[in-house]
Amino acid sequence: MRVVVDGDLRDLPALWWEDGEGLRMLDQRALPGEVRVVTLTSATEVAGAIRDMTVRGAPAIGAAAAFGMALGAKDPAATAALLRATRPTARDLFHAVEHLRRIIEIGEEPVAAAQAYTADLVDRCRRIGEHGAALLRRDARVLTHCNAGALATVDWGTALAPLRVAHRQGKALSVLCDETRPRLQGLLTAWELQNEGIACAVIPDNAAGHYLSRGEVDLCIVGADRIARNGDAANKIGTYEKAVVAREHGVPFYVAAPRSTFDGACASGKDIPIEERSQAEVLEVQGHRVAPPGTKARNPAFDVTPARFITGFVTEDGILKPDDVATWMEGARHDRTHEGSTVQPKR
Amino acid sequence: MRVVVDGDLRDLPALWWEDGEGLRMLDQRALPGEVRVVTLTSATEVAGAIRDMTVRGAPAIGAAAAFGMALGAKDPAATAALLRATRPTARDLFHAVEHLRRIIEIGEEPVAAAQAYTADLVDRCRRIGEHGAALLRRDARVLTHCNAGALATVDWGTALAPLRVAHRQGKALSVLCDETRPRLQGLLTAWELQNEGIACAVIPDNAAGHYLSRGEVDLCIVGADRIARNGDAANKIGTYEKAVVAREHGVPFYVAAPRSTFDGACASGKDIPIEERSQAEVLEVQGHRVAPPGTKARNPAFDVTPARFITGFVTEDGILKPDDVATWMEGARHDRTHEGSTVQPKR
Repeated sequence: MRVVVDGDLRDLPALWWEDGEGLRMLDQRALPGEVRVVTLTSATEVAGAIRDMTVRGAPAIGAAAAFGMALGAKDPAATAALLRATRPTARDLFHAVEHLRRIIEIGEEPVAAAQAYTADLVDRCRRIGEHGAALLRRDARVLTHCNAGALATVDWGTALAPLRVAHRQGKALSVLCDETRPRLQGLLTAWELQNEGIACAVIPDNAAGHYLSRGEVDLCIVGADRIARNGDAANKIGTYEKAVVAREHGVPFYVAAPRSTFDGACASGKDIPIEERSQAEVLEVQGHRVAPPGTKARNPAFDVTPARFITGFVTEDGILKPDDVATWMEGARHDRTHEGSTVQPKR
Repeated sequence: MRVVVDGDLRDLPALWWEDGEGLRMLDQRALPGEVRVVTLTSATEVAGAIRDMTVRGAPAIGAAAAFGMALGAKDPAATAALLRATRPTARDLFHAVEHLRRIIEIGEEPVAAAQAYTADLVDRCRRIGEHGAALLRRDARVLTHCNAGALATVDWGTALAPLRVAHRQGKALSVLCDETRPRLQGLLTAWELQNEGIACAVIPDNAAGHYLSRGEVDLCIVGADRIARNGDAANKIGTYEKAVVAREHGVPFYVAAPRSTFDGACASGKDIPIEERSQAEVLEVQGHRVAPPGTKARNPAFDVTPARFITGFVTEDGILKPDDVATWMEGARHDRTHEGSTVQPKR
């Protein structure tokens, strides 16, 4: 992704392996205000970074967890347990941990496998971008929620990949970015889009319905944290409201995600665990306390959008209707990087 | 309203006239963190307080404007123009200014008239509370948006008046308060409810749909800034989304407002002007900057909820269906305080 650091335009992923150093990542808690790189040298540090959201976004959490498994390869069972306990909703986390566990079990080099996992993820996101760009007309007005950009997926993004590709094709997009309380990841989205040169504005989450009702949105596109076999999709809290209002106005609502976010073990959204995060995230904004002592809050981090509100899924293999998800999941090559290795694609 | 000041429970309105001093009001920009009283001694100061939201909420803005007209009674035309230019959406502002302009024209005492206007408003809100309390079962779980409490109406509130009355009747309510970005008026609501002893929690605006979808809300109730003859209602940005999702789940959605918020000059919501406020309200939170330089934002302060999403209006005369609004508006005594005076009720 394009990042401006000290006035220079650079091309950076959200995380990468540095030989002899460890796992490097952009600290997403400091963004978009400050570009700060942290280096993690143990599985415990990686688990901490996932838990405290130094790294966030389901696919990027998966990639971080793959490197976490590599860093803790001496005790794969304990490392897997440590990483699995960090956050409950993102499917990619469990997928990546399981993938690396098997790699370690058969004696392959785990850092190389984590690098391959990450490269494969980035390639899948690039393809999501190519398929999704076809949905965007030349002057499309897009609404997105949370950050499903390069930061959330190592590079390209899921929901933002089609916007990057369409922009590079010369389309004059404009994007409304829900700010996405409580953690304001919409600011990360605006930062990514500005770095890319795509016109955008941050709006209060409350304003999305207003713009949908006024015909100022042509298409909604979001990422996902876990998608069930029936096409129900868990994503950042608030996604469900936007999907309901989009349908009310006949505005297409797309969910962009790679195969690793689809969970064959979940028959429907009812099977997806929803993380409840701390009250402090609501009662504070970026560490600034907004509520007086004694105020209580509730803070579900995700909600489930039933398949009937989803126009289609933008995947690395193309656009799918919700009804086609289960069949695609059975056929999709899940571990493309390991074809020909002793690790067989999960079917 | 019950307010805890320095550990003491006091009964305070949002604003009141102090002979020899001027118009006193709680500074709502400092709440709920700090109870600070400001004194305004000119129409210009009142206009400033409305504009910068020291006082907010359509009915309370109306009461403040009535006192503003009294303070600027020497030049009623100029004072009316000054006050009318403060905020465009709240109907009560224009109603109160016009009412006081006529009072001054016929030579009545304007401070007494502003006091009568305010006392009448408070009485109407008390009656809204009595009618609305009947909608709430003993253990009702309620969702509200923004602050339609005593702060917004001088006392009792519109949406919160039924909660106060039901609580005093011994009902064990629990309330989810949308935090209501960008200005977080949901914190004012939580503060009012806590002072009253009503169980409540603040939620991110994004979470309302989640709780509606899980069957954790029995009834939604909000205030309004302006209601058209056909029952379309403008209220704080985000109200529309909540109404759409409430209907999706069959949860009743009520709008509570006194007659002064209903505007006979608006045939439908299309006639209601929507205020666009500064980008800074989105890019900052309580003065704390959250977005990096160069980030753009859009900030519509209100949206319009079409009548078809509204179960009923809770008014001082009882519960109305949207279809009955126009007839009620024609018959309702608009200026109850001035019956028998030379000012005739508007019909």
